[in-house]
Amino acid sequence: MRIVKNDTKYIKVASYEGKIGEVKKVLLLYSGGLDTSVMLKWIQDEYKCEVITLTADLGQQHDDLEAIKQKALKFGAKQALVLDLKDEFAENYIAKGIKANGSYQGNYYLSTPMGRAVLAKNSVKIAKKVGADAIAHGCTGKGNDQVRIEGYILTFDPKMKIIAPVREWAMDRNEEIKYAKANGIPVPASLDFPYSVDDNMWGMTWEGGEIEEPQLIAPIEKFLTTYTLAKNAPNKEELIKVTFKKGIPVALNDQKLKLSQLIAKLNKLAGKHGVGVVHMFEDRLVGVKNGGVYEMPAGHVLIEAHKALEKYVSTRNLNELKQELDTKWGYLCYGALWFDPVMEAINTFNDFVNEKVTGEVTLKLYKGKVDVVAMQSPYGLDHTSFTNLGGYSFNVNASAGFIEIYSLQMRLAKQIGGK
Amino acid sequence: MRIVKNDTKYIKVASYEGKIGEVKKVLLLYSGGLDTSVMLKWIQDEYKCEVITLTADLGQQHDDLEAIKQKALKFGAKQALVLDLKDEFAENYIAKGIKANGSYQGNYYLSTPMGRAVLAKNSVKIAKKVGADAIAHGCTGKGNDQVRIEGYILTFDPKMKIIAPVREWAMDRNEEIKYAKANGIPVPASLDFPYSVDDNMWGMTWEGGEIEEPQLIAPIEKFLTTYTLAKNAPNKEELIKVTFKKGIPVALNDQKLKLSQLIAKLNKLAGKHGVGVVHMFEDRLVGVKNGGVYEMPAGHVLIEAHKALEKYVSTRNLNELKQELDTKWGYLCYGALWFDPVMEAINTFNDFVNEKVTGEVTLKLYKGKVDVVAMQSPYGLDHTSFTNLGGYSFNVNASAGFIEIYSLQMRLAKQIGGK
Amino acid sequence: MRIVKNDTKYIKVASYEGKIGEVKKVLLLYSGGLDTSVMLKWIQDEYKCEVITLTADLGQQHDDLEAIKQKALKFGAKQALVLDLKDEFAENYIAKGIKANGSYQGNYYLSTPMGRAVLAKNSVKIAKKVGADAIAHGCTGKGNDQVRIEGYILTFDPKMKIIAPVREWAMDRNEEIKYAKANGIPVPASLDFPYSVDDNMWGMTWEGGEIEEPQLIAPIEKFLTTYTLAKNAPNKEELIKVTFKKGIPVALNDQKLKLSQLIAKLNKLAGKHGVGVVHMFEDRLVGVKNGGVYEMPAGHVLIEAHKALEKYVSTRNLNELKQELDTKWGYLCYGALWFDPVMEAINTFNDFVNEKVTGEVTLKLYKGKVDVVAMQSPYGLDHTSFTNLGGYSFNVNASAGFIEIYSLQMRLAKQIGGK
Amino acid sequence: MRIVKNDTKYIKVASYEGKIGEVKKVLLLYSGGLDTSVMLKWIQDEYKCEVITLTADLGQQHDDLEAIKQKALKFGAKQALVLDLKDEFAENYIAKGIKANGSYQGNYYLSTPMGRAVLAKNSVKIAKKVGADAIAHGCTGKGNDQVRIEGYILTFDPKMKIIAPVREWAMDRNEEIKYAKANGIPVPASLDFPYSVDDNMWGMTWEGGEIEEPQLIAPIEKFLTTYTLAKNAPNKEELIKVTFKKGIPVALNDQKLKLSQLIAKLNKLAGKHGVGVVHMFEDRLVGVKNGGVYEMPAGHVLIEAHKALEKYVSTRNLNELKQELDTKWGYLCYGALWFDPVMEAINTFNDFVNEKVTGEVTLKLYKGKVDVVAMQSPYGLDHTSFTNLGGYSFNVNASAGFIEIYSLQMRLAKQIGGK
Repeated sequence: MRIVKNDTKYIKVASYEGKIGEVKKVLLLYSGGLDTSVMLKWIQDEYKCEVITLTADLGQQHDDLEAIKQKALKFGAKQALVLDLKDEFAENYIAKGIKANGSYQGNYYLSTPMGRAVLAKNSVKIAKKVGADAIAHGCTGKGNDQVRIEGYILTFDPKMKIIAPVREWAMDRNEEIKYAKANGIPVPASLDFPYSVDDNMWGMTWEGGEIEEPQLIAPIEKFLTTYTLAKNAPNKEELIKVTFKKGIPVALNDQKLKLSQLIAKLNKLAGKHGVGVVHMFEDRLVGVKNGGVYEMPAGHVLIEAHKALEKYVSTRNLNELKQELDTKWGYLCYGALWFDPVMEAINTFNDFVNEKVTGEVTLKLYKGKVDVVAMQSPYGLDHTSFTNLGGYSFNVNASAGFIEIYSLQMRLAKQIGGK
Repeated sequence: MRIVKNDTKYIKVASYEGKIGEVKKVLLLYSGGLDTSVMLKWIQDEYKCEVITLTADLGQQHDDLEAIKQKALKFGAKQALVLDLKDEFAENYIAKGIKANGSYQGNYYLSTPMGRAVLAKNSVKIAKKVGADAIAHGCTGKGNDQVRIEGYILTFDPKMKIIAPVREWAMDRNEEIKYAKANGIPVPASLDFPYSVDDNMWGMTWEGGEIEEPQLIAPIEKFLTTYTLAKNAPNKEELIKVTFKKGIPVALNDQKLKLSQLIAKLNKLAGKHGVGVVHMFEDRLVGVKNGGVYEMPAGHVLIEAHKALEKYVSTRNLNELKQELDTKWGYLCYGALWFDPVMEAINTFNDFVNEKVTGEVTLKLYKGKVDVVAMQSPYGLDHTSFTNLGGYSFNVNASAGFIEIYSLQMRLAKQIGGK
Repeated sequence: MRIVKNDTKYIKVASYEGKIGEVKKVLLLYSGGLDTSVMLKWIQDEYKCEVITLTADLGQQHDDLEAIKQKALKFGAKQALVLDLKDEFAENYIAKGIKANGSYQGNYYLSTPMGRAVLAKNSVKIAKKVGADAIAHGCTGKGNDQVRIEGYILTFDPKMKIIAPVREWAMDRNEEIKYAKANGIPVPASLDFPYSVDDNMWGMTWEGGEIEEPQLIAPIEKFLTTYTLAKNAPNKEELIKVTFKKGIPVALNDQKLKLSQLIAKLNKLAGKHGVGVVHMFEDRLVGVKNGGVYEMPAGHVLIEAHKALEKYVSTRNLNELKQELDTKWGYLCYGALWFDPVMEAINTFNDFVNEKVTGEVTLKLYKGKVDVVAMQSPYGLDHTSFTNLGGYSFNVNASAGFIEIYSLQMRLAKQIGGK
Repeated sequence: MRIVKNDTKYIKVASYEGKIGEVKKVLLLYSGGLDTSVMLKWIQDEYKCEVITLTADLGQQHDDLEAIKQKALKFGAKQALVLDLKDEFAENYIAKGIKANGSYQGNYYLSTPMGRAVLAKNSVKIAKKVGADAIAHGCTGKGNDQVRIEGYILTFDPKMKIIAPVREWAMDRNEEIKYAKANGIPVPASLDFPYSVDDNMWGMTWEGGEIEEPQLIAPIEKFLTTYTLAKNAPNKEELIKVTFKKGIPVALNDQKLKLSQLIAKLNKLAGKHGVGVVHMFEDRLVGVKNGGVYEMPAGHVLIEAHKALEKYVSTRNLNELKQELDTKWGYLCYGALWFDPVMEAINTFNDFVNEKVTGEVTLKLYKGKVDVVAMQSPYGLDHTSFTNLGGYSFNVNASAGFIEIYSLQMRLAKQIGGK
């Protein structure tokens, strides 16, 4: 959502909001973009305090982390820290997302909500290490990310102070640019590029401009940066194979890779085919509806593959309940409750189910679409295997008896109550 | 699933199974294919009784209903009835499926389960009209359809007798063909075409051959008959528009159509782009896993469009619950419980939600994929409209207060219990 | 929760909060107790504006509504309105609660949450009628009721201003009493009675004192006012009969009564036996846990009776889903979402289910306990009736077939995956 | 349900049913009652094979296991085994039930469904040890227990043969008694005692006679055997204390006891007060409704205590989901799916939640009723503790902001769509 000047002066009422004079050293979550660069100066000016920046490496593909670091130092950061969170993100967050077939209101695979969780948790660690008494972030006051970042920071340090300059300052977009120019902060060449992005290995989230308006068609060719558009993809199907062990992808086309690397590689492979682009109009946690376009090549392929394999090794009763809990998981993850025990409890459920999610899945990539076309697993609930293991073969003589009893109450209800 | 000779002789134990000598006039649900044609003769031979055939028009595209009728008469049917159920199917079954975003274990839109419901209900009506004391069907003893057909028949007539020859007879595929030839019943030219299909306007279900084996890739070019394959689709995106009124599609590209016609037209339009082909490996109700390939161009487009519009007009709380109930609906519909009060109760819930699902949805069709790209509705829960209607504009001053309270228990839990 | 002085000055940040100078005429929701009486003066003093009081008759048993009215006028109210909402409350709120077996986190039947909904909705009507530009209420800033009252008022009038003096003022209990005395407002004789109550026909909610402390046993003999304690109840069982029509109680011991009267009568009858006293320690919507003692004689009897009858006329599949939705309904109702479409949608589901909830339920009351001991309904899903209506009698020959298929996947899973 | 002669001859169609001539050595699950005693002779006569009896000690209180053993030998058992399963039952079954607050359709705590699971699993072990090729049980063909016993046996040995004489034989009650007399099997003195019971430490299940008829009041004074009736209970409240560790009761009134002993002791203590008697009319798995009266003193107390403590240490979000999963657990456990992975998955969820369910619960017992009146836990999510641990105290300044955002969509929906 584009920055629009708040109608009224911002007033701090939450206990945890850092006030001017009260905070001495701020850890700023720094992306290197316009907003957080302006913030870096603005906090020094307004709060008269030291700023240390933290930039997380979550596997985003379009960032030059060293350049971001230098930029931070240039604009006055006392220290500019870059933290490699790729493996922690992949193994402790995305892996749980895969086990949960984690998606929200359709096919949004929750890249930003999970990215915020790992970032917020680590920001507390770093803040303590560097002796910061407040953490500042670049989220707006109308979105989900403020709820996630602030809620998670307070979860790990109940007394940490937080500063949210975009929520607080009185600048609109033009004033922000003016401020930037006045402070020597580079401003994007094209001011009529209204799109903003949140980027990590699990997906890129595009917002702004026509994307926000449900009745407009988002001009994806203007902003989609990853790889290619479906219409430019090769006009040739490609088969790929993903190997899972206990729910986690461990090999791509038979090449063993750790998860963060597998995702990076698959982003390119599936991205080439334009797979994983999703238009959504979703419910934000704060009550407004919001448009987004998501690019999630690896996410889309892995969730589709995982769903199919998991369904193959689980009973129908388990599949039904898992599907319901997956829905719940998606709402909770999106809903800024990553560290609530309710999510941890569902994760233990998912771990159990995924003990059997081992095997290979073959997928076909073509022109923006992915299809699971074959799979195998030692745990596939295949009746033929069962018979080989000593079970009785399917007995059609049992069927009518089953039907007579299974349908009994439906029949009763229609005869007795259905008039 | 291909017909395989049963290991043991079939024994009738269910109360409702018609026995030789006991039934005098049988209504046979007749598709015109090999199985039901053999059945037509076999029932006359074995049960020494009159057979009347019933062939339902559910909008299937590859049947010549007049030819089927003549075939039935040729093989001894006393009467050969053809019943046009297209509108009843569309308006009383598919419409409920659309409101429920009805799908099972992924993207199977339940064409066969709903087709069986309308067929079974009507077969009871016809049986009574023609004075039949039993209904015969062509379902195997290992599948879902026997449970649906028999359960639903008994729901509407608790004393109707039922005959399921495939479950009962001792013929395997070769013996069946031998029997057919001996009785002058035409046998498919290509005996190595192991695929069978269930066809209605909402979708075609392919089974048999490699489709049954999870580790094999189904050779869809051999059997997919509707329209085209994605790889042969035009290399050009097409935008279409679907208009909904209270959850029901009422116009396609601004042309008003009744639902059965809209579906027929959209099957061609979306089919041309190869949209709606789904590979599945699903849980049958009788406990075995089963592969299928589904062709559902209209179904896929309409469900995607409906989901997006419904989500746009509903609150987040409602969207979450609806998604859980949609999952449940899919399991119940697949699970042969169409006429159980539990489904009727969910349908009333869905009717309420769909009171607001009115508006237009624009979709992009391309190479097997469909994307909702724009929509509008007078009921869209759009914050801008709200402000125009007199609501307060979004107040960022409220955000930190919201966050402080919303995250409270997560924070408590981590501090108190999270050690 | 007792009033404790806020640590910090209250700052109004919500758009809807009425500010001094901005509001001219206030409608105060007036109970006649100390808090709202102090408020009545305080608003006149602080806001320099006219106050009209509104006292709702929700069937509370311990209020003298005429005396409350006179008290309001005495302390400066320009008008003192008393509104009889008994039937609206019973028929449009409690009736939905009964159909939903509405309870929260155990056996709390949601008397206060439903009472707040009917009160808030009507307060908007009255405010418009009398030309008030703000509504004031007596809820604290730590509880659920502020969320309900304010959310519901804004639902019906998005521009209404709201004043919450307890949240706003800087008085603690002692200062409030001082203020009361200074203004001639009568103060309760016993200052060491720390218990407060919310009273309506569906139940009384006691809070404060030991009730708030989970490790203490609430001294119920000090405050329970309705009727009697179980230990003082007659040592003799009493049987009563409740007649339901479409889910609604319509007669008590064969005497036809409208719902509000039936509840009033049953409160006495069941209260005499000490039925319906519940100790709870529940999750408030704002994140804190809270103790309460509830007195709900009629509520307890009617919900128990309704549950039993509903279960008797519904199928097992429906009973399971209904039980899950009842849980959800309880959380939503408690959670200040009465007018969200999600609740209305569940209510339509419940209306459908309750079409068959017609019949008589016999209950035994004894020493604080109620047991459903017998019931009858024309819609009871009784197998004997079914057989009489033409259904087959239960066929034990079908059982083993049912078992073989029903248990199939559990067996597969253990053999294939269970090692 | 009383034994009624089947209308038709029983025909074995399930693969696993043992046929005459096919089985050589049968393990009979022997209770010592009339049915299984007649069976013991009848199997020897009909199947011409050796019978070994197995009697399980599940903590039932009204069995003399040594006498049962002698009786078995007297009527021809080659061996009469008695197996002490008390601890296995308590620790691997009931403990899971407690963590799940396991109940079905109200307050039936699933004593029989869990008892059948432990019995069936062990019967397979013993059958293998003694070389039996079939297991026989005394369940009728109309109930749940046949589904449990047979399904579970096949889960642990897919090739085991099963014999269900009551389902199979053609005797009604009178013929059975005649058969018994002819074979010297003692027949109950009072033939007009139509009630039967299933007894284990977690509860006694009474069926038969008036209990089966919903419109009749079951004459509990005729058959309730455990302890006392509420009306004969002491007219004096008693407080007791249960200590939980990770969800499991470990001490009663500060006396440490292993679970099976704690249950036995609490059965007496709570039974003395008439606690835990429940009248139900429930949905059997096979589609019929069934009346039962349950005596479960310890079960009732422990589930009530556990629920309260678990709710106290869990977040509201977790409590809501847990309540939904508890409902599901009850249906699955009752529904003969104890060993399906879906239940194991829920059990791992429950184990996680119960990691914090540690503390003490005080309950009041009086005249058939139990109330949780106090509790304490180091993990109680108590806001006071949180503040002491460094969290911010509750900030009423945050409340209006919370309300403004929390209620936003409800308000939007009413303004935009609510006309």
